[in-house]
Amino acid sequence: MPGRYKQITKKVGLPPGTLLHIGSKRSEKVKIRKLCYSSDDWTEKEFDKVDELLESISSAEKCWIHISGVHVVSMVEKIGAAFQIHSLVLEDIVNTNQRPKMEDNKEYLYIIVKMIHCYENNIDFEQVSLIVGNNYIVSFQENDNDTFTKIRERIKSTNGIIRSKDVDYLAYALLDCIVDNYYVALEYLGDKIEQLENRIIVHPQPKVLKEIHTLKNEMLFVRKAVWPLREIINALSRGDSALFKKDTLIYIRDVYDHMIQVIDSIEMYRDMVTGMLDLYLSNVSFKTNEVMKVLTIIATIFIPLTFIVGLYGMNFKYMPELEWKWGYPAILLIMAFISGCMIIYFRKKKWM
Amino acid sequence: MPGRYKQITKKVGLPPGTLLHIGSKRSEKVKIRKLCYSSDDWTEKEFDKVDELLESISSAEKCWIHISGVHVVSMVEKIGAAFQIHSLVLEDIVNTNQRPKMEDNKEYLYIIVKMIHCYENNIDFEQVSLIVGNNYIVSFQENDNDTFTKIRERIKSTNGIIRSKDVDYLAYALLDCIVDNYYVALEYLGDKIEQLENRIIVHPQPKVLKEIHTLKNEMLFVRKAVWPLREIINALSRGDSALFKKDTLIYIRDVYDHMIQVIDSIEMYRDMVTGMLDLYLSNVSFKTNEVMKVLTIIATIFIPLTFIVGLYGMNFKYMPELEWKWGYPAILLIMAFISGCMIIYFRKKKWM
Amino acid sequence: MPGRYKQITKKVGLPPGTLLHIGSKRSEKVKIRKLCYSSDDWTEKEFDKVDELLESISSAEKCWIHISGVHVVSMVEKIGAAFQIHSLVLEDIVNTNQRPKMEDNKEYLYIIVKMIHCYENNIDFEQVSLIVGNNYIVSFQENDNDTFTKIRERIKSTNGIIRSKDVDYLAYALLDCIVDNYYVALEYLGDKIEQLENRIIVHPQPKVLKEIHTLKNEMLFVRKAVWPLREIINALSRGDSALFKKDTLIYIRDVYDHMIQVIDSIEMYRDMVTGMLDLYLSNVSFKTNEVMKVLTIIATIFIPLTFIVGLYGMNFKYMPELEWKWGYPAILLIMAFISGCMIIYFRKKKWM
Amino acid sequence: MPGRYKQITKKVGLPPGTLLHIGSKRSEKVKIRKLCYSSDDWTEKEFDKVDELLESISSAEKCWIHISGVHVVSMVEKIGAAFQIHSLVLEDIVNTNQRPKMEDNKEYLYIIVKMIHCYENNIDFEQVSLIVGNNYIVSFQENDNDTFTKIRERIKSTNGIIRSKDVDYLAYALLDCIVDNYYVALEYLGDKIEQLENRIIVHPQPKVLKEIHTLKNEMLFVRKAVWPLREIINALSRGDSALFKKDTLIYIRDVYDHMIQVIDSIEMYRDMVTGMLDLYLSNVSFKTNEVMKVLTIIATIFIPLTFIVGLYGMNFKYMPELEWKWGYPAILLIMAFISGCMIIYFRKKKWM
Amino acid sequence: MPGRYKQITKKVGLPPGTLLHIGSKRSEKVKIRKLCYSSDDWTEKEFDKVDELLESISSAEKCWIHISGVHVVSMVEKIGAAFQIHSLVLEDIVNTNQRPKMEDNKEYLYIIVKMIHCYENNIDFEQVSLIVGNNYIVSFQENDNDTFTKIRERIKSTNGIIRSKDVDYLAYALLDCIVDNYYVALEYLGDKIEQLENRIIVHPQPKVLKEIHTLKNEMLFVRKAVWPLREIINALSRGDSALFKKDTLIYIRDVYDHMIQVIDSIEMYRDMVTGMLDLYLSNVSFKTNEVMKVLTIIATIFIPLTFIVGLYGMNFKYMPELEWKWGYPAILLIMAFISGCMIIYFRKKKWM
Repeated sequence: MPGRYKQITKKVGLPPGTLLHIGSKRSEKVKIRKLCYSSDDWTEKEFDKVDELLESISSAEKCWIHISGVHVVSMVEKIGAAFQIHSLVLEDIVNTNQRPKMEDNKEYLYIIVKMIHCYENNIDFEQVSLIVGNNYIVSFQENDNDTFTKIRERIKSTNGIIRSKDVDYLAYALLDCIVDNYYVALEYLGDKIEQLENRIIVHPQPKVLKEIHTLKNEMLFVRKAVWPLREIINALSRGDSALFKKDTLIYIRDVYDHMIQVIDSIEMYRDMVTGMLDLYLSNVSFKTNEVMKVLTIIATIFIPLTFIVGLYGMNFKYMPELEWKWGYPAILLIMAFISGCMIIYFRKKKWM
Repeated sequence: MPGRYKQITKKVGLPPGTLLHIGSKRSEKVKIRKLCYSSDDWTEKEFDKVDELLESISSAEKCWIHISGVHVVSMVEKIGAAFQIHSLVLEDIVNTNQRPKMEDNKEYLYIIVKMIHCYENNIDFEQVSLIVGNNYIVSFQENDNDTFTKIRERIKSTNGIIRSKDVDYLAYALLDCIVDNYYVALEYLGDKIEQLENRIIVHPQPKVLKEIHTLKNEMLFVRKAVWPLREIINALSRGDSALFKKDTLIYIRDVYDHMIQVIDSIEMYRDMVTGMLDLYLSNVSFKTNEVMKVLTIIATIFIPLTFIVGLYGMNFKYMPELEWKWGYPAILLIMAFISGCMIIYFRKKKWM
Repeated sequence: MPGRYKQITKKVGLPPGTLLHIGSKRSEKVKIRKLCYSSDDWTEKEFDKVDELLESISSAEKCWIHISGVHVVSMVEKIGAAFQIHSLVLEDIVNTNQRPKMEDNKEYLYIIVKMIHCYENNIDFEQVSLIVGNNYIVSFQENDNDTFTKIRERIKSTNGIIRSKDVDYLAYALLDCIVDNYYVALEYLGDKIEQLENRIIVHPQPKVLKEIHTLKNEMLFVRKAVWPLREIINALSRGDSALFKKDTLIYIRDVYDHMIQVIDSIEMYRDMVTGMLDLYLSNVSFKTNEVMKVLTIIATIFIPLTFIVGLYGMNFKYMPELEWKWGYPAILLIMAFISGCMIIYFRKKKWM
Repeated sequence: MPGRYKQITKKVGLPPGTLLHIGSKRSEKVKIRKLCYSSDDWTEKEFDKVDELLESISSAEKCWIHISGVHVVSMVEKIGAAFQIHSLVLEDIVNTNQRPKMEDNKEYLYIIVKMIHCYENNIDFEQVSLIVGNNYIVSFQENDNDTFTKIRERIKSTNGIIRSKDVDYLAYALLDCIVDNYYVALEYLGDKIEQLENRIIVHPQPKVLKEIHTLKNEMLFVRKAVWPLREIINALSRGDSALFKKDTLIYIRDVYDHMIQVIDSIEMYRDMVTGMLDLYLSNVSFKTNEVMKVLTIIATIFIPLTFIVGLYGMNFKYMPELEWKWGYPAILLIMAFISGCMIIYFRKKKWM
Repeated sequence: MPGRYKQITKKVGLPPGTLLHIGSKRSEKVKIRKLCYSSDDWTEKEFDKVDELLESISSAEKCWIHISGVHVVSMVEKIGAAFQIHSLVLEDIVNTNQRPKMEDNKEYLYIIVKMIHCYENNIDFEQVSLIVGNNYIVSFQENDNDTFTKIRERIKSTNGIIRSKDVDYLAYALLDCIVDNYYVALEYLGDKIEQLENRIIVHPQPKVLKEIHTLKNEMLFVRKAVWPLREIINALSRGDSALFKKDTLIYIRDVYDHMIQVIDSIEMYRDMVTGMLDLYLSNVSFKTNEVMKVLTIIATIFIPLTFIVGLYGMNFKYMPELEWKWGYPAILLIMAFISGCMIIYFRKKKWM
C-alpha cells in the first residue's frame, strides 16, 4: 500500500482543478442510479450516459443520484457542471487517495468518507464522496457493490420514515451505513487478534510475526481512514451546516457515538497487538532459554565423563590404574558419582 | 472479548431505532421492581409483566423502577412508550455494547455506565442504563444481582436522608454505588499485580507472561469502561443538567473525585504492568546468560583436556612420550595446570 | 502498596458522609496542639481531649490547631461539628487514600496534600489535610512527627514576619514546608539513580533489575502524590480563593515555581531510569555475547583437533599412517596449522 | 546532517541583521529571472546583475522575480534595499538552516518553505523564500533547478487562469507546487519501506538495520521540514493575511488538505518503520533460536553416544564386556535405542 | 548531576527570602562591571565592592551592571536593596538550581536563563539572572567568563545601533547571545551523535552504550534548561511586558524563532539517539547470532564424526569391520559424505 503515491506524483505542477483519476485502473462500465422520492411515492432509474440522466432531472422532488465508478473523468465533469460543483471538489472526487474531509460550499456540502471492505485475508478501502444539496444528494463510489442496497430498499418500502424526511436524513442514513460497516472491520481485526493470540501461545513461529506486522499496518490504515471522520461527524452534529435540520442532529449524534466507539476499539486493539508482540518475543526468548538448559545439562554431565573415559583410553605404557583388577568398576562408580552431583546441582538451580 | 462485535454487525443497514438485543444470550425471567417513596413513607412491589407495572404508576410520588434484564426487547419497548423515551435511547439500552455516555433529552437524562464485576479469575462488565426524569428513575441492568440492594435498604430505613431528597440524589446514590464498585476492580487488579510480581521474581515462567498479557488486556477493558464516565460525571458536577439541583452537586463532585482517583490508579497500574514485563524479560535473559556461563566454563575446561587424552590415545607406532616412565603423571600435571589457568581466567572475568 | 484498596472497598454502598478511618492501623494517642498568635504575642497549648480544646477557643486571635492522628474518628467528628465542616470533608480527612485536592467551601478552604517521608530504603506517604478558615487553620496529620516544628518555631521567634501576617500566610508556610520536603524525596531518588547506575556498569545483576523496578514504582507513587498539587497551587496563585490576600500570592507563586521544578525533575528522573533499564539489558546481552565468543573459540579450535586424534585412535588393522615413522610429528604439525588458521580467522572477525 | 550547526555557530554574538550565507558552499553564477505579466500579456527576462534588474522594474505590472542562489550576499542585500525588506528577513534568506515560517510585515509577507529533492538513494532539502508583496513576488532558491518551470509555463500559456489572477494566486501556485513535491518524497519513502520490508523477510542482515536507521533519520528530517508548514498554510487559509484575497483562500485550503495528508502519511510511515524494526529483531532472535535447536539436537544425541564409545575405548585390563561375543552389536543397539529416545523427546518438545 | 538536590534540602523549613547560595562552592573574587552609555558616549568601570558601585550610579544614563559571581550573598543583598528588588527574587538569584522563568514585578522584569557551556567531553550549565528595569539592567552570572564580551564591544563601537536604543534592546541582545550559544550545544550534541553512530557500525562495544546513555542524560538536562525559555520568550514577543517597546518586539520574535529551531533540533536528536540504541542492540544480537552459527556449523559437522572415530576406537574383541582391508578408507569416505550432507544442509539454511 505504500506504493500508492506513485500516481499522485503525476499531478505535480498541474494547475488546480485538473481532473485526473487516481486509483486502481478499472474498465467496468459506470452505472448511474437515480432514485427520486417524496413521502408518497418513489421512482428509480438506471442510466449509462450522463446526458440521459441530466435530461431526466426535475428539481421538484428529492433526488439521490448514485454513480458507481469515478474512473471515467468526463462523466464526473459533466455531472459537476450540471450541479455547479467547484472544480477542486471534482478533482478530489476522482482522486481516490483523499483523506476523509468535509467542505461546506454554501450551496452544497461535500463529504469524503472511506468505506472499509473486509475480505478473507485483507482489507480494502473505497472512497465514497457525497454532495449533499438542498433537495438532492449526488454520491460517488469507486465500485459497483451493494453497500447502499439496504438504504435503497428502506426508501422503497412504505413504512420507512426515511421518505417523509428531507435529504439530510438520507445523508445521515448513508453515513450511518458506512460507520456501521466499520464494525465489520472491527470484527475482522478482533478475529485476527484472537487467532494470532492463540497461535502465539500454542506454536510461535516467525510467520506469526509477519502476520502481526501485517495486522499492525492494516490497523494503521484503518485508523487513518476512520480517525478524520470523527471530527467531520462531530462538526455535523454540532449543527455547523445549515443543510442539516435540527431533528436530524439527534441521529447524527448517534452516529457520532458509534464513531467514538469504533475509534476507542481501534486504539484498544493497537494496544493489544503491541502486547502480542511482547508475548511472542518473550515466548521465543523463553524457548531459547529452555533449549539452552537442555544443551547445558547434557553437555555438562557428559563432557567430564567423556574426558575420564578418554583418560583411560590413553596408550601410556605405565598407567598403574589400568592393571588394577577393580579399576573398571571403580571408574564406573566415580563417573556415576560425578553425574549424581551434577544432577543435584541442576536441581538446586531449578534447571531440571 | 474481541469477538463481541460479531453481534453488532447484525445491525448494519437497519434503520435507526430498531430494537435488537446485543449481548450474551439469556433466558432468565426479567424482574421489575418498583420502589416509590416520599420523605414519610415507601412502598415496594415486584412485577413480572410491564402492563401491571404501568397500571400501578401514579405520578404523585418519587418512583424508582428497576428492570433486571434487557434481553426481552418487547418489555423495554413498552416501558419506553410509557415514559416517552426516544427510540434511539431504547436501542442503546438493549445494545449492551455501548460506551458510557450521557444524553440530556430535556424531559429526562439518559446515562449509560458500566458495572465491573470481579470474580476469582476474571472480570465481567455489565451495562447499567439510567433514565433520570423529573420525579422518577428508570434503571436497566443486564442481570438480576444485588448491586443496588444496599441503596434499596437505605431508602427503606427511617434515618437515611435519601428519602427526604429528590430523585437526583437517588441518581447520585446509584452512580456513587457503581463508582465505589470500581475500587473492588482496582483491588482485584492490584492483587493480581502483587501476585505476579512475586512469581516473576521467584520463578519466571512463560505462564506468568501469559497472565501479564491477560492482565494488561483486562486493564485495557476496564480503562475503556471507566474513562468516559469521568467526563460524564464532570459534566453533571458542573451543573450542566437542570434535573440535578444545586445541593446535590456537592455529592456529585465527591463522586468525581473518586473517578479521578480510579483513573489515576488504572494509569499507574498500567505503568507498573509494563515495568513487570521488562522485569520478566530481563530475568529470562539473565538466566540464559547464567546457563551459558556454566556451559562455557565446563566446556572450555574439558574440551582441551579431552583433546590431550585423545592425543595419547592415538595408535601411532612411534610416539616416544608413551614409552616414558613418567609420561602419565606428567600429562596429569599438565592437564591440572591448564584447568588451573582456565579457572583463574574465569575468576578474573567474574564468571565464577 | 497496590493492596491499599482493600480497605476502601469496605465503603462500597455506604451513605456519603460516613466517617471510616482508612489507612494503616494505629493505636498511638492523638495529640492536639493549639497555637494562637497575634503580631505581639503567642500562646501554645497541648490537649488530649477535643472538648478541652473546644472550650479554650476564642475567636479573637489567629489560631492554628494541629491534630496528629486521624484514626480516632470521633475526635475528627467533634472538631468537624465545632468548625462546621461538611461531612464529606470529614470523610476525606479520615480516609488517608485521598488524591491531593482543594475544595473551596466559601467559609473555609479544604486542601489535601501528601507529605513524602524518605527513609533509608523506602518512601512513605502521609496525608495532611488543611482547613483554612478566616482566622484559623485546622490541620490534620496521620502521625506525630516534627514536620512542622520549624514553622512553630518561626511563629514563636520575635523577628519572624509570620506573626504579623494573616493565617493565609501560615497556610502558605505549611504548603511551602511540604513542597520543600519534596526536594528531600528528589534527593533520595537522585541518590538511588546514581548508585544503581554505578552498579549496572560495574557488576550487572538481576538484583539491580529488581531495584530499578522498585525505584520505578516509587517514582510512580511520588508522581501520583505530587502531580495534582501543581494544579491546586496554581489555582491558589491565580487568586481563585478569597481567603488568600493579594500580597500572599507572590509567595504562593514562589511555591508554584518549586512545584514545577519538582515535577520537571521527576519526569526527567523517569526518563533516566528508563535509560538505565536499557543500559542494564544491553550490558547483559553484551556479556552473553562475550561468553558465547569464548565458548565458540575454544570449541571451534578443539573440536576438529579432537576429531583428528580420535581418527588415529581407531583400531583398524590396516591404517598405513600409523606405521609411518614421522606420522606422529606430522599429525602434530597439521593440528598446529589448523589451529593457526582458526586463530587468524577469529582475529579477522574481531572475536579475539 | 547533524553537522550542519557548525556554520550557525559562527554567528554567535554578531549583531542582528548581519548577512552571512550559511549552507553548502557554492560557486555557480546566480541567475535572476523576471517574469512580468498581466491578463493579456507577459514578458520574461534573465539578468546577471541586480542593478540591471532593478532598472527594468516598473510597478505597473504584476511581477515575479526569481533568484536562483543565495550565496552571493551582496545581491540579496541590494534586492532587499530595493524592495525595502527588513534586515532580519534578509538574514534569514541567506541562512539556509531556517525552520519553515511566515512573517506578516504589513507591506509584504515573508514565507520560508523547504523543498524536498529525492535522488536515487538520499534526500536533499532546499530552502525557498517567498516575499509576497502587493503586486510582486520575489522568490529565492538555493540552486538553479527546474522546480518552478511548470508554473512559468502556465503563466506563459494563454489558457491558464493564473495570469488573470493577482499575485496571491501565484504565491498559492508556488506553495502548491512545493507541497505537491512532498508527494514525491512520500513515494520515495514508501518505496524504501516496501523494499526493506521484503528484504527483512527474505534475508535479514545488519545492513538492513543500518538502512532502517537511515530511513528513520530521513523521516525525522522530512518531518521537521514539513510539519511547521502546516501551521503556516492553515494561517493563510484562515485569511490571516490581507494580501490573500478571499477567492484564493479556497485554493489555499486545498493545499492545506494536501499538507494534512502528507503529515498523516509521514506519521503512519514512522509507525510502520518502528514495526519493521521489531520485525527485524524478532526475525534475528528467532533465527538464533533455530540455530540453537539444531546445535542442541546434534549435541544432545551424540554427546552421550560419544561417551559410550569412549567408555569401551578404555584400556583397562579387566573389562568383561569387551570379551563378550555379542558385545559390539549389543552396544550398537543400545546406542540406537538412546538416540531413538532422544528423537522422540525432541519431537514431543516440537524442536524437530 | 542527580546529586544536586543535596544542597537545596538545606533550605527546608527556612522562611521565604532567606538568601543561601546553592551551587558549586567558589572562592574567586566577584567582579562588578558597570557600563553606562547613551547614543553619544559610553563609560565603563570595574568595581570590587558594592558600595563603590552604588555611589557611582546616577540615574540619568542607561546603565548595565554585570556581576560575575553570586556566591557572596551579602553583595547580592546590598545590590538588591539599592535597586529595591524583592527578597524572593534575590533568593532565586543566589540559588543556581532555578528553572528558567520570568517574573514581571511592575518596576522591573526578572528573567532567569541557563547558559550552556560545552567543553571537550561534557556540558555545563550556568545560571544567568537579568533584572531589566526602566533604564538599567542588572545581570548576574555564576562565573567570570567572556560570554557577553562581544556585546560589550558592540556597545563601545561607534557604528552599532545598540547604543541608540533603550535598555530593552540590550536585554534582547543578552538573550539573543544566550540563545545563539545554544547552537554551540547543538553542534556539540550533533558531533557526538555522528561519532557514536560511526562507532556503533564499525565496532560496537558496551563502552559505546555507556556513552549513548550519558548523551541521553545530557540531552535531558539541555532540554530541561532550554524548554521553559521558549514560553518566556514567547511571552516577551507577544508584548506582555510594558518594559519592552514595540520595535524591539520584532527582534524578540527573531530570538523566538531560534528557540523553536533549537527545541525542534533537540527533540529530533532525542529520536535519533533512541534509534541509535536500537541499532546498537540489534548489532549485538546479530553478532551473537553470527557467533552461534559458526559454533553450530563446526560442532554439528564434527560431533557425529568424532562419534564415528570413537566407535572404531573401541576395544571389543569381535568387531568385524576392524579386520576388513578397506575398512579405514571406507570409514573415511562415509565421514566425507556425512560432512558433505551437513554443508549442503547449512547452505540451504543460509548459514554459510
